[in-house]
Amino acid sequence: MKVVVLGGDGFCGWPTSLHLSSRGHDVTIVDNLSRRNIDNELEISSLTPIRPPGDRLAAWRQVSNHVIGFRNLDVARDYDRLCALLEHERPDAIVHFAEQRAAPYSMKSARHKRYTVDNNVNATHNLLAAMVETACEAHLVHLGTMGVYGYGSTGAPIPEGYLPVRIRDGAGNWVDREILHPANPGSVYHMTKVLDQQLFFYYNKNDSLRITDLHQGIVWGTQTPETERDERLINRFDYDGDYGTVLNRFLMQAAIGYPLTVHGTGGQTRAFIHIRDTVRCIELALLNPPEAGDRVLIRNQMTETHRVRDLARLVARLTGARIDFVDNPRFEAPDNDLAVENRQFLELGLRPVTLEEGLLQEVMEIARRYSGRCNPDRIPCRSRWRRTHAAQIGTAP
Amino acid sequence: MKVVVLGGDGFCGWPTSLHLSSRGHDVTIVDNLSRRNIDNELEISSLTPIRPPGDRLAAWRQVSNHVIGFRNLDVARDYDRLCALLEHERPDAIVHFAEQRAAPYSMKSARHKRYTVDNNVNATHNLLAAMVETACEAHLVHLGTMGVYGYGSTGAPIPEGYLPVRIRDGAGNWVDREILHPANPGSVYHMTKVLDQQLFFYYNKNDSLRITDLHQGIVWGTQTPETERDERLINRFDYDGDYGTVLNRFLMQAAIGYPLTVHGTGGQTRAFIHIRDTVRCIELALLNPPEAGDRVLIRNQMTETHRVRDLARLVARLTGARIDFVDNPRFEAPDNDLAVENRQFLELGLRPVTLEEGLLQEVMEIARRYSGRCNPDRIPCRSRWRRTHAAQIGTAP
Repeated sequence: MKVVVLGGDGFCGWPTSLHLSSRGHDVTIVDNLSRRNIDNELEISSLTPIRPPGDRLAAWRQVSNHVIGFRNLDVARDYDRLCALLEHERPDAIVHFAEQRAAPYSMKSARHKRYTVDNNVNATHNLLAAMVETACEAHLVHLGTMGVYGYGSTGAPIPEGYLPVRIRDGAGNWVDREILHPANPGSVYHMTKVLDQQLFFYYNKNDSLRITDLHQGIVWGTQTPETERDERLINRFDYDGDYGTVLNRFLMQAAIGYPLTVHGTGGQTRAFIHIRDTVRCIELALLNPPEAGDRVLIRNQMTETHRVRDLARLVARLTGARIDFVDNPRFEAPDNDLAVENRQFLELGLRPVTLEEGLLQEVMEIARRYSGRCNPDRIPCRSRWRRTHAAQIGTAP
Repeated sequence: MKVVVLGGDGFCGWPTSLHLSSRGHDVTIVDNLSRRNIDNELEISSLTPIRPPGDRLAAWRQVSNHVIGFRNLDVARDYDRLCALLEHERPDAIVHFAEQRAAPYSMKSARHKRYTVDNNVNATHNLLAAMVETACEAHLVHLGTMGVYGYGSTGAPIPEGYLPVRIRDGAGNWVDREILHPANPGSVYHMTKVLDQQLFFYYNKNDSLRITDLHQGIVWGTQTPETERDERLINRFDYDGDYGTVLNRFLMQAAIGYPLTVHGTGGQTRAFIHIRDTVRCIELALLNPPEAGDRVLIRNQMTETHRVRDLARLVARLTGARIDFVDNPRFEAPDNDLAVENRQFLELGLRPVTLEEGLLQEVMEIARRYSGRCNPDRIPCRSRWRRTHAAQIGTAP
């Protein structure tokens, strides 16, 4: 299958591109290297020594004999070049990772909020408009987030995109309907994925585009079998307060003898998935597209849920690290429960990598091997969700 | 009350600004004159001879002794100047009309779709980010659209923003909730107002901004008591296929002896409001803001519903005009019913101007008086909702 991967140089996009290529798909990466530029802005770098795109792709060709194409193109800005690419490549599928993806980064300042909204909405909308304009019949697979649903609610498991409800008809009787799950995003970043959902709904309805939206949990782990084949293929590892996600951050902190920083009480329950499952899920989604005429297909891409303080305790037990409870920068309830339906990927054959399977060690080995590259000043999260935290809320909004 | 009116040079913004000024409020208009520039692009002009902003405002000062301020500023682009304005003016309220507001224009081409999304989303988000950054405590009143709800559904009247539903809790029991009404927009333009709703939801939740979102029906009529005070104050009148809304377009067509062009079967039922009620509703909304800590207050700003072919027959009966049924450019069901709740404004004291009250004559007099300025070539709608209309749908999507 001919696949264009938008954002194929990033933490999820790169291993996905290699995985699809190794499975025999014809892959072209589109990326404007914005994630590397943000590293420059934040004066940080991936813990792992990632190579420039040209070096990575040359190494992949050497070790696998597969060729991956590359275009440096800004999906949110270079609309005409995007159309030319779609007309030239005529892909069977497009995987869309090309969005700013860190919640703390999106909350750093008005400039960061505005960049995140402008970039993410225009990237997604340019893609949809270009697909219509070029009569591109590709299946679009988009990376959404579990964060569109919000946490809390009734205690029922979060369904895969669509919620069965009862509403009143004209005669006042309750009738059954299924609606797009009401959104309750927790940051400007998460909100942009809510906006994406509405864009997908409309272009699916009006232009019959075939779209899969994957609501992904927090990704942990670093390497996949493909990125491990050569050090020049290594995946990026973020440990900083903006881009480092919670479990990887704890493992990194343990590896360098820094206390595990738990935000607030650590009572937040979150959904997780290992990077090895991310890349498998993307291929499963590509191989199982919606039919022509179907509504947007939404799948929950996560494999387990954990409470943040339980993760901290697990890592502390494994490593002897100390736990520090620090102020929560986010404006959120101190505790939440979370149950999530994820039958779709299990039924398609996914056998999840779970925390118990020893891959925690793999991350810690990476963290230890490259700990000399770590700048501990960058570990704390300095973004704040509100001007003042005086009015921190007590319950889920 | 000190009020900043974003988009205060447009069809609704201008008479609103005059009405608020005449009622003693201290008004500053912000506008980048994009609507006048679109007239240039479309090679069309308002049927009525609208004056440049400076002339209009000088005339208002002469006839009313009130001063309205004016800033030529692009809310979607000039973020720093927007912040400076908010810090300088410290308004009590902001009325936000500063969006591209024509569905057919938003569907003309990929460029028009992209402009509408980019302009409308960034205008609204810049405003929200600027209000947070400058600690602006103004009440924000936004012009939404009835089109966010979509037409059709269960036959129950469309509520004012929030829909009572039953959902299952963790034990499988149905529990009552109230959710933001599911969105089903009919064009890229309408979709941008759906995106606005999600922006408002988030900024209200995270930053406690006080926001009223007014879901307005199709506005008819031209003049208000204030715009009638001097010909230099005249309001714009759009009769073209992009910006001319259905009832005003019929009245114009009748005035120049052009057949009334009904799209499809004319079975579409739409919600309407007279421009005189629009300006009254805005002041009522300003005088009745949500309390600090309230969710986004949503009001339906419409006064009656009509089926399009009934309006055509009414105008034909009054004028002797012929009715032409032409292809529907929109991708929509040929027929729909529509019932809408609008108790909020009635309870605040609105006494609606209805079609029966003779103001149809007022519009036809305007249309006749300026018919020499009409270019009949511009009357048909040339936008198309889909690349091909082969697959026109038979029922509401």
